[in-house]
Amino acid sequence: MAQQHLEPTDPLSGHVGPSTGDALADYLRSQATEFLRALRQHRDSGGTAAGAEGPVDAARALRRSVRRISASLHTFRPLLDADWSESLRPELAWLSGTLGMEHAYGSRLERLLLALHRLSGAVFPAQGVGPAAHSAPAPDRAGLTVGAAKAGALLDRQLTLARTRAHSTALQALGSSRFHAVADTIAVLASEVPLVKSATGADLHPLAAAAQERLDDAAAALPLVTAGHPYNAEALVHGLSPDPSPHPQDAPWHQVRLLLRLHRYAREVLTSSVDVRLLTAGQCLDRHRDASEAAAAAAQAARTPRIAPATAYALGVLHADQRHEVEAARFAFQQCWQKQAVST
Amino acid sequence: MAQQHLEPTDPLSGHVGPSTGDALADYLRSQATEFLRALRQHRDSGGTAAGAEGPVDAARALRRSVRRISASLHTFRPLLDADWSESLRPELAWLSGTLGMEHAYGSRLERLLLALHRLSGAVFPAQGVGPAAHSAPAPDRAGLTVGAAKAGALLDRQLTLARTRAHSTALQALGSSRFHAVADTIAVLASEVPLVKSATGADLHPLAAAAQERLDDAAAALPLVTAGHPYNAEALVHGLSPDPSPHPQDAPWHQVRLLLRLHRYAREVLTSSVDVRLLTAGQCLDRHRDASEAAAAAAQAARTPRIAPATAYALGVLHADQRHEVEAARFAFQQCWQKQAVST
Repeated sequence: MAQQHLEPTDPLSGHVGPSTGDALADYLRSQATEFLRALRQHRDSGGTAAGAEGPVDAARALRRSVRRISASLHTFRPLLDADWSESLRPELAWLSGTLGMEHAYGSRLERLLLALHRLSGAVFPAQGVGPAAHSAPAPDRAGLTVGAAKAGALLDRQLTLARTRAHSTALQALGSSRFHAVADTIAVLASEVPLVKSATGADLHPLAAAAQERLDDAAAALPLVTAGHPYNAEALVHGLSPDPSPHPQDAPWHQVRLLLRLHRYAREVLTSSVDVRLLTAGQCLDRHRDASEAAAAAAQAARTPRIAPATAYALGVLHADQRHEVEAARFAFQQCWQKQAVST
Repeated sequence: MAQQHLEPTDPLSGHVGPSTGDALADYLRSQATEFLRALRQHRDSGGTAAGAEGPVDAARALRRSVRRISASLHTFRPLLDADWSESLRPELAWLSGTLGMEHAYGSRLERLLLALHRLSGAVFPAQGVGPAAHSAPAPDRAGLTVGAAKAGALLDRQLTLARTRAHSTALQALGSSRFHAVADTIAVLASEVPLVKSATGADLHPLAAAAQERLDDAAAALPLVTAGHPYNAEALVHGLSPDPSPHPQDAPWHQVRLLLRLHRYAREVLTSSVDVRLLTAGQCLDRHRDASEAAAAAAQAARTPRIAPATAYALGVLHADQRHEVEAARFAFQQCWQKQAVST
């Protein structure tokens, strides 16, 4: 599957500029600069108003650069000072995780409320998360639509609470000495990249190719034949199992999502050209992850004590709907990935 | 779509024997004989033990011949005595409906219990409807699997009750004077078919072609482009709407199912060759109808007062699962129908 190796005929070879350790240093410097810029923007915008545009954009830019620095440390590990790299990586993982939670809860809630409105045959009143779920059902919608409205209100309460907590945690993190140590390290990285001696002239291609190979191997191990058969009903197997945590069957797909991101970022170091198919495949796997977590949130909400049967019913429909989104995302990935394998 | 008209190049023209009113008379006589044979078998086997093999087969054979006689009366109406035909048709519809209910409730329950087991990641213990839903959940399956078991027990109670009532109604019907009048009419039909004078030498093809045209037109009006896109999520729109009755969006598909059956039976009058693609398309629409009604039964069960939230949740998952089966059946029909249109 997708044997798109970095051979001379590959578009990657048509890159402008060097593909040596210098290119890696350039990339890390620019990502570090990006990080510092986003951090300044975050501080300037106050960073306290949850949901306001400025800090949201700044937080996204922070996460964006942290992910890329972290990925480069992983993929090009042999070219970087080992002690420096090994001490920085867990800190970046902590930062990325902490900064991502608020956004994750927010978009999960939006996805679930959108789905509830779609399943009720209603149009979502406005973009974004808002009072939609609280709006009274239309007079001719008694019974189960009350369930949908109650389910929406329950999810809104639970996920807004989680989101608010994540916001506080992120703010605390950004004010912590642990964060300041990371920021200092990245400030140094913006001017001085700790390459090992042999790295300056070293060819980056073998390490980038290894990242791609890890992706190809993991993708080939996915049940793509099943995924390519529409309506295979695989994603909802265990849909009624007692464990509301993400399904074990999703894990290999989440892993491919991470490997695809590592490959994409490694590619960014080598070339400025964007592979649209990689982006599309990544979006399929993002959708897979989002639907998987939304389904788990609906199942979790259904375990809230003393909810009405109509609320529980709506959450059941919602859970199954999101599990089918999981299946749909796998199908879309399979279609995209197959195309990739054929065209290269 | 599917312009498979009865032209000279059509396999239909290669039929053996006449395709005139005589062929229609032969067909009706043989179906009437089949009816009488099934009726005798039903009486010999007692006909009282619900679920026993003999009467089930006999009832199926009865329904089978009633459907075919009824369809012929419809498609070839101009060739048959109008008064006779008009008085018999509603009686056949009543009989077909009454005899079909027991089987419908039984297979609906089996479909729903199978789905519940699939959704719990469990293997259905044995073929057929039975104590499966009552079996205690495995010790490591607490929480929502209790919900699945309770949902199964609730559906079992409701649909078994409905099935038992349908059985009694069918038995009463078979003992009624109304039924005896129908049986007498069909007994006469087994030897004497009331063709109009002009029918004996009349060509059956135009009337059969008209039946096919009605099918083609109705199929062409279906949203087949949407259905051909996997995971279009159309079938679950209104999945949370308050009305648990079958969705209005299903009606045109049910209509095509009936028209396809009329076409298939008209074809039987003209040729003994079986069109496998027609059979497959019909099976897709049977599956569509079954899933649609199973989804409605799950939604209906969820409106039972005082059920536990876990039961309601399981019924919600089940409802959504069956609505996705509806969508899957539409996709399968679209694939089959498109093939038909291309290959002819």
